[in-house]
Parts: sequence; C-alpha cells; structure tokens
Amino acid sequence: MTIFTEQHPGVEQKVPPETSGFTFNHTMLRIKEPQRSLAFYSRVFGMRVLRKLDFPEMQFTLYFLARVDVDETVPEDVGERTMWTFSRRGVLELTHNWGTEDQADFAYHDGNAEPQGFGHICFSVPDLATAIHWLESNEVTFVKRPEEGKMKNVAFVKDPDGYWIEIVEAALMSQMGR
Amino acid sequence: MTIFTEQHPGVEQKVPPETSGFTFNHTMLRIKEPQRSLAFYSRVFGMRVLRKLDFPEMQFTLYFLARVDVDETVPEDVGERTMWTFSRRGVLELTHNWGTEDQADFAYHDGNAEPQGFGHICFSVPDLATAIHWLESNEVTFVKRPEEGKMKNVAFVKDPDGYWIEIVEAALMSQMGR
Repeated sequence: MTIFTEQHPGVEQKVPPETSGFTFNHTMLRIKEPQRSLAFYSRVFGMRVLRKLDFPEMQFTLYFLARVDVDETVPEDVGERTMWTFSRRGVLELTHNWGTEDQADFAYHDGNAEPQGFGHICFSVPDLATAIHWLESNEVTFVKRPEEGKMKNVAFVKDPDGYWIEIVEAALMSQMGR
Repeated sequence: MTIFTEQHPGVEQKVPPETSGFTFNHTMLRIKEPQRSLAFYSRVFGMRVLRKLDFPEMQFTLYFLARVDVDETVPEDVGERTMWTFSRRGVLELTHNWGTEDQADFAYHDGNAEPQGFGHICFSVPDLATAIHWLESNEVTFVKRPEEGKMKNVAFVKDPDGYWIEIVEAALMSQMGR
C-alpha cells in the first residue's frame, strides 16, 4: 500500500509496517495553576477533561483534555475512558507539579523567548473572524491579530501560562507560503 | 447537548456553542536539520509530510506531518490537501529557520532542562514491547525504558533535536495514577 506524501530530502517513501497503529496521541505542557488552565481550555476552547491522574508519591497531577465531536461518545467507565483517551489524536496533557501555584515568582517557559524550542499549539476554527470575536469577548491575550504582521489570516493568543496558541481557518491557509 | 467530562475545579460544565468546530490541529517544534528530522519521523514513526510551506521573505520553512490511517485518503490537489491538513487532529509542525543547520554549536531547547515548560509529544502504540524493539532496531536514543523509573509501562525517547517523545500502550494506561 502506498499513501500519498510530499517527497522531500530525508522522507521515507513508504510507511514502515512496524509503525502500523502508531497514533500521535498528545502534547504535554506544564502548568502552574490547574484551576486557571482548566477554566481557560474548557471555556475558551471547549475542551473536556477526559482523565485526571494523581501521582502523590511524585507530587504531580496530569490532566488529559480533548475536543470531543458531537458524534463521539466518551466512555463513562474509567478503564474504558482511559483506553479511549490514549487511543485518539488531539489530546492535550497538562502537568501540575504540586506547590508551584503557591510560589509568587514561579513561571514556566513558553519556548518562544530564548532558549527557543517548542513554539505553539494550534486550533483550527470554522470561521476566523467569528473565533477572534469569541476570543476577544473572553479577554484572551493576543500575541498577534490576523491583520498584524507578515502572516495574514493567522492569529496567536496566549494561554494562562503564556504558551502560544495559533488560531487558523483551514480554508484561508491555501494562500500561505509557496 | 451534554458531553461527559470529569468535573474538577475550574472546568466549565458545558461546551460553549461558540467553540463548535474548533479542532486541536497541531503542535509546533523548531528543528535544526530538516532532512534529519523528516527521516526520523517518517521512518521511525511512519509519519507523512502533508504540506511543506516556504517563506523566503522570512527565511523559514514549515513542514506539516501526520500519521495517516489506511482508511484515510490524502488529497493530491495542493489546495484540497492544505485544507485537509488544517482540518484534522494530530498534526506535527516542524519549523526550520534557514541556516541553523550550518551552525555547529546551534541547538534547540527541549523544555525539560531548565527553564522548563513544554514537556513532550506522545505516540500510543498497539503493543509496547514490539514498539520498543522497533525503536531499538532504529537506534533511537532512550530517555527511559518501560521498566525503568517509577512510571512502569511508559517509555521516553529523544527525537533528533532532543525533544522527548513518550511511548505508551493504551491498554496498559489504566494502571497509571489514582
């Protein structure tokens, strides 16, 4: 079986059969204040908490969040829901190391200031203008509005820890780049 | 409509209708050497390059990669494929700032050394032991093997830039945490 792919130097032509069933499941970001982050991601981006896992021995808690489509059913049984959580794409893991919320000067590194590495997560939205209005009505902090800078039709906002979130509309992206 | 969710302090009870259609599309990581990273993600994790976007004016290139299931058809038409790329979950964006590959001492920050922030991306696999064998046969660098440390049944490996990639098997995760 061949699956269409763009060919660039380095790209393996075929999908190795040994990778069958591999799923890009989640991205993990450390957060300072769970209540603040859960309110943000559930209210502003409509994400659900699929699972919360506590590790008292190591003093941290993990929250697994995802957007759930109307045609998807989240299992209520904890074991089934855990299985479901780790079988799907598009999960956001938030790690809370206990006690950081009580340290006034504690802050995580966003990856865009030096030293650079991780850049952002991204949500695509059905209509960019409507989404921007929604973000503004929720008093979200903007890094860049769609009309600013060289990359039009792309916005960046900040989550409560300062991580960047890109906002794009799929239909507008065909005009990007070369 | 209500969608099941775990309730924790901060979590909004209902999914705001204004977020309908929002999709957690991608995570962006900066990379030093595209050929090296594309070889790694296409060969070891079986990802495909959906789109490559060049921005000569700003001297960078973006690569959008994803796992493609056997029942999915990637559009060959560039416009349709771009639309498809930005409409789905589980995309990995790799950003190459031109010229970094020629700087001997240049390296990106993995987010796990100080200053901390981003932690890792994660692939779930059908069978952990088989996947570990595959990773070893590809001479991937391990941060932690499944049997090491306090979190059993979870592995971490490094990508070519040193970013951590977690490897989990969904069926084994119900034993994790409390």
